[in-house]
Amino acid sequence: MRRLIAAKRDGAAIGAQEWAELIPAYLAGSVGDVQMAALLMACVLRGLDAGETQALTEAFVRSGEVLEFPADLAPVVDKHSSGGVGDTASLIVVPLVAACGVRVAKLSGRALGHTGGTLDKLEAVSGVRTDLDPQTFARVVREVGCAIAAQSERLVPADKRLYALRDRTGTVPSLGLIAASIVSKKIAGGAGAIVYDVKCGNGAFMRDVVSASQLAHVLVALTQGFGRAATALVTDMNEPLGRSIGTALEIIEAREFLAGTHRDPRLRTVCLALGRALLQGAGWEPRAADEVLDAALTSGAALQRFEAMLAAQGARSGALAQLAPLGEGGSIAASRAGYVTAIETVALGEHARDLVAAAGSRAGIVVRARIGDAVKPGDALATVYAPGCDDGEYDELVRGAFIIGDEPLPARPLVYAEVTSSGTGDARSTVATR
Amino acid sequence: MRRLIAAKRDGAAIGAQEWAELIPAYLAGSVGDVQMAALLMACVLRGLDAGETQALTEAFVRSGEVLEFPADLAPVVDKHSSGGVGDTASLIVVPLVAACGVRVAKLSGRALGHTGGTLDKLEAVSGVRTDLDPQTFARVVREVGCAIAAQSERLVPADKRLYALRDRTGTVPSLGLIAASIVSKKIAGGAGAIVYDVKCGNGAFMRDVVSASQLAHVLVALTQGFGRAATALVTDMNEPLGRSIGTALEIIEAREFLAGTHRDPRLRTVCLALGRALLQGAGWEPRAADEVLDAALTSGAALQRFEAMLAAQGARSGALAQLAPLGEGGSIAASRAGYVTAIETVALGEHARDLVAAAGSRAGIVVRARIGDAVKPGDALATVYAPGCDDGEYDELVRGAFIIGDEPLPARPLVYAEVTSSGTGDARSTVATR
Repeated sequence: MRRLIAAKRDGAAIGAQEWAELIPAYLAGSVGDVQMAALLMACVLRGLDAGETQALTEAFVRSGEVLEFPADLAPVVDKHSSGGVGDTASLIVVPLVAACGVRVAKLSGRALGHTGGTLDKLEAVSGVRTDLDPQTFARVVREVGCAIAAQSERLVPADKRLYALRDRTGTVPSLGLIAASIVSKKIAGGAGAIVYDVKCGNGAFMRDVVSASQLAHVLVALTQGFGRAATALVTDMNEPLGRSIGTALEIIEAREFLAGTHRDPRLRTVCLALGRALLQGAGWEPRAADEVLDAALTSGAALQRFEAMLAAQGARSGALAQLAPLGEGGSIAASRAGYVTAIETVALGEHARDLVAAAGSRAGIVVRARIGDAVKPGDALATVYAPGCDDGEYDELVRGAFIIGDEPLPARPLVYAEVTSSGTGDARSTVATR
Repeated sequence: MRRLIAAKRDGAAIGAQEWAELIPAYLAGSVGDVQMAALLMACVLRGLDAGETQALTEAFVRSGEVLEFPADLAPVVDKHSSGGVGDTASLIVVPLVAACGVRVAKLSGRALGHTGGTLDKLEAVSGVRTDLDPQTFARVVREVGCAIAAQSERLVPADKRLYALRDRTGTVPSLGLIAASIVSKKIAGGAGAIVYDVKCGNGAFMRDVVSASQLAHVLVALTQGFGRAATALVTDMNEPLGRSIGTALEIIEAREFLAGTHRDPRLRTVCLALGRALLQGAGWEPRAADEVLDAALTSGAALQRFEAMLAAQGARSGALAQLAPLGEGGSIAASRAGYVTAIETVALGEHARDLVAAAGSRAGIVVRARIGDAVKPGDALATVYAPGCDDGEYDELVRGAFIIGDEPLPARPLVYAEVTSSGTGDARSTVATR
């Protein structure tokens, strides 16, 4: 182990066989946290090359169980978001793609920091369970066409152990370590094609387009290394993706989106791009994918699939339809005229999280103004649902998260880049030009 | 702690107050080995700036007791070697400088790896003790003019704890961490002027002149920061310094050197340079220093001082005079004609260490050929003192450590550089031109 640490410290690559032995040795306790912490810091500062990242990811996958879906269900696809605020996309895209005839087996996580967690959102629907055992998970995927479940503790236990150590030792921010953590869990989840939504901006873990694009490329290359098709989109997270931030509030936004009663344009753009990528991962042509996605939304098939998935995961009858925000909501108004030039996304995410913790799952924030919008004094910036919490201090927090300037900003791309691979060929990359 | 680790990881400097709090927190157990290991690796890869190194060294010094000599003994000087093979210099220079009227209070260490330890050598003299308590140490310095003792466990306990962690976690090779470790122990030892002998070459921890010179500059600047005079010499360690490698064998070489019966020219050059630097640290002019050093050697005063020091530290009467190599010694002869172009110094050091461990303190190796010497088949390269150990395999090991080529090498400097500071002014540096 001292030799491995010294090699990494001095800039050498650790061999595939060494990674393959190191991870089980760490789990077995024959390599301790102290030496692993030093090695991880050397990995953060020296970086991991493509071969090392692949070997580490393989060792992660082998550390636990690996799901496998019966051949007659193929192609089964999965989707991952790197985490954002108001990111309701999974709740929409999963049933939407299933309604197009492609099975979606999505493993999800809990809220982390200021970002929301799909499991927490689903559990805001009365009765819904996300701790599905592998048999139940596969059964719902087969019968409904889609399921969203918590990752079992038995999948990739090495990542869980190592992440806890990284969190204590300042060794989280490493492209290779982050990519190995993400991809190993998706590979162990058993899908044959995976779409990554790498968020980028002031509400994302990756603040700039360059680092987000690097992560996108590494995710696709790693996934391809396991023979799975992969696409990564780099999408904007400088403001909440949808309008709603919370748990039940985001379920409501997904319901209204699928029902066609309200479709936020930003959320729509990202959901259709993700849906198209998932269908392409399953072998569809882009034009056909777009047409079928549109039909599944228009016909109500996607909404029906959402209801069916929730029911199969335990939702009480009528629970989705009855879900409503907590109280009337308090409007937060602009105090000056101008244009919204920036939104402090992390602050809104943290605030919504705190409101849900204090007042329950139906609390939260709905943004009314978007970056670029012109506002005048009294115009609504947001609605806050949190009866009893809405004292002046909270209102000022929300109001202060909307930065209002004198000049409008030029429009920004919503999808910055797309990296794709068929699972056998080379990765292709397209980058937004505006 | 996470914030400190992240700051260092990202290239920021850790503040003096933070180092001052971190080291006691680590000793008290409120900062654990796991987080410290990650921080140390970040320090190795990001480096420590001058302010950080100074603050860390101060925190080290404050972690334990600090010796202080009575004012009437001043100036008290000390000497440190970064470790080499056949480095008998301390055994010669300490009594030599004391014979010139300047008190030397030397704290020494044990053998480390292939390098010898002055304490191990002294203990080869029957009866000698090196575990002197601070009172005895000061009494011997007062009465004899010099003493060489083991560093008490109560001096700089933080360095001992942290070094053990660094050794396990591949975080030893950091200029700042190495310098803080060395200087803190010298400062806690109480001397007012300190001379560092930074070894450089294939038998030293610093292989190249550039890194050895960097260490020399950092050692001097750090020591100056505590208001003590400091000089660092960068000296060659591409072959053993003296001819003898072992414990008793090196005591014998020191005895013969001080008695004038045999003075190896390389050893003489380095000992006089170190002696001059120590006297200059005590305020002497260079020319006066050279004259008095010469007189102390010629008159036998230095040898008397060595005998007196050993006696004061417990040597049995006649023990020094009676010390002799183990057996007759086996001669290792050159098998071809040519010039000695290199000596594998680490191999000789390790081999002599193993012989002492197997056959006792009077075993070891005496080198007979030096780099640049012309040899013909049958000429002695070395004498090995190890009756019962001298099978053919061992002989080949020693023979193989002498690399013989066809052309003589140009002469190399023995003292590559000298960095000095008065304790109040700026450091001056001179570099050998050949």
